[in-house]
Amino acid sequence: MNEFELIARLTQSLPTNANTVLGPGDDCAIVDLGLPDRWLLFKTDAIVEGIHFNATAPPDKIGRKALARCLSDFAAMAGTPTHALITLALPTHFKVDFIEAMYGGMNALAARHHVAVVGGETTTNPERLLLSLAVVGTVQKGHCPTRSGAKAGDAIFVTGELGGSRSGKHLDFEPRLAEAAWLADNFSVHALMDISDGLAGDLPHILDASRVGAELLSDAIPVSRAAKLAARAEPSAKPPVLAALTDGEDFELLFTVASHDAVRLVDAWKNPFPELRLSCVGKITAQQGLTIRDKQGTRPLTEHGYVHFA
Amino acid sequence: MNEFELIARLTQSLPTNANTVLGPGDDCAIVDLGLPDRWLLFKTDAIVEGIHFNATAPPDKIGRKALARCLSDFAAMAGTPTHALITLALPTHFKVDFIEAMYGGMNALAARHHVAVVGGETTTNPERLLLSLAVVGTVQKGHCPTRSGAKAGDAIFVTGELGGSRSGKHLDFEPRLAEAAWLADNFSVHALMDISDGLAGDLPHILDASRVGAELLSDAIPVSRAAKLAARAEPSAKPPVLAALTDGEDFELLFTVASHDAVRLVDAWKNPFPELRLSCVGKITAQQGLTIRDKQGTRPLTEHGYVHFA
Repeated sequence: MNEFELIARLTQSLPTNANTVLGPGDDCAIVDLGLPDRWLLFKTDAIVEGIHFNATAPPDKIGRKALARCLSDFAAMAGTPTHALITLALPTHFKVDFIEAMYGGMNALAARHHVAVVGGETTTNPERLLLSLAVVGTVQKGHCPTRSGAKAGDAIFVTGELGGSRSGKHLDFEPRLAEAAWLADNFSVHALMDISDGLAGDLPHILDASRVGAELLSDAIPVSRAAKLAARAEPSAKPPVLAALTDGEDFELLFTVASHDAVRLVDAWKNPFPELRLSCVGKITAQQGLTIRDKQGTRPLTEHGYVHFA
Repeated sequence: MNEFELIARLTQSLPTNANTVLGPGDDCAIVDLGLPDRWLLFKTDAIVEGIHFNATAPPDKIGRKALARCLSDFAAMAGTPTHALITLALPTHFKVDFIEAMYGGMNALAARHHVAVVGGETTTNPERLLLSLAVVGTVQKGHCPTRSGAKAGDAIFVTGELGGSRSGKHLDFEPRLAEAAWLADNFSVHALMDISDGLAGDLPHILDASRVGAELLSDAIPVSRAAKLAARAEPSAKPPVLAALTDGEDFELLFTVASHDAVRLVDAWKNPFPELRLSCVGKITAQQGLTIRDKQGTRPLTEHGYVHFA
């Protein structure tokens, strides 16, 4: 049983209550506390030494990443994070300077986004450092794009460039909070999430939740310089487009809008975000399944990449 | 540098913002989201295999305990928990049945308190299971007892009986949510917290936050049957009163009210909570420091127990 099968089993019978708007399965949970115009967003995320980072990474960037991952989930709901709690599970041997620098990186990112760190706890995890963040925030009521709203005919967009994040970007990425807020304010965003497991791994979450399919255009995938450099340096590395589809930790936005909004969006985007690329990478289809089209034809795409022609 | 010194250093420079009512240092953080009559409470707590539980413990009780600890922190603010996220860090080798039973224990306690489990995440922690809960809820605005309101002359109360929890109660305790809500509704509770590190370890948190001292009465400490049995079974074990003062994981309420409310409280308590003992264990003093009085006199009390007469 893999992680996704276990989660599916565990989430079948979770208790709920009347003011739960959205439970498990999206980037944040949504709760209605009775505010006239806002919902509460609620999210946790953990990083573990040796799994999500190595202890040789700069500690300020480790701390920054732990919080940035959570903030990216708020961007994925077009929400505003406001308060965070930090759970710090310390190994038997730790350096106070390292922990302080880690907090420094977290605090700097929090302060820049006006997120208050209101406490947390320390505990012991003898073999390795584990850092878990819990974040709350709000989003405009009824104005929060989830994964389930994609419609056949929608244009699919991604921000930035994809692939090769683990060569550096994963420690330094910018959560796309401003971009997502602008999108939700100015467009009817049908579905929205952040890309953490690769475009080919994450787009199916939107497709499943929305009960639709999608066709991507290989030539339209924005391939990062890091993915291109990696392919050039090492002949056995993934081809750049495949890296852009399947490498994890991009933390870019993936979203859909009605096709009649697509051109207006591309035009309007350049004004607030002249430095950040926006790419239309394909379209939502009524027929379920995910395919990718290139010069050779149209092929099924799995989370691990192409299904090769026989 | 111990855990408390590290926390003190890390919490010196945390970012805050305008709608933070109470940051680190109490049982929950308090946030003002703009609700007319309620504040948001926010808390995380983690339990780690080999530290807070052994893998030989019944898995449903491990899950129950993880959530109950958090709910006890909501009781400590006279709040109402409403939504929880579960972070499950799984060791390399785990049994699906064990994890499912653990969730079963958590879910049953959550359902009983109308707490919705709205998601979370699973990650990997190769050597041992770690379970972290994040919980939000609300409390009546301006009506939330913290650790800092104790006043000289206050009577100090504890619910239930203390000591010996690790022989069983720690896996099965009842978070005192109803009792705390009733207290806050019917009395002016000056200071309130839950006892997780022993009365002698936790009362100083109220004393420090309130800048007061306290004198406990040895004969008034409600000693649990478990603590008495342990002392009887093993001559080298702690004397029962010392166990009641210094054993951890009681998860009872510790609070202060004005002395003129004390008798009325003791009378009123019996009606809603006839099965739960309520004990006045001492008084708050203007002079700082914690002492305990018995037949031999008055002695300083530290988190580890008495300072013996020379």
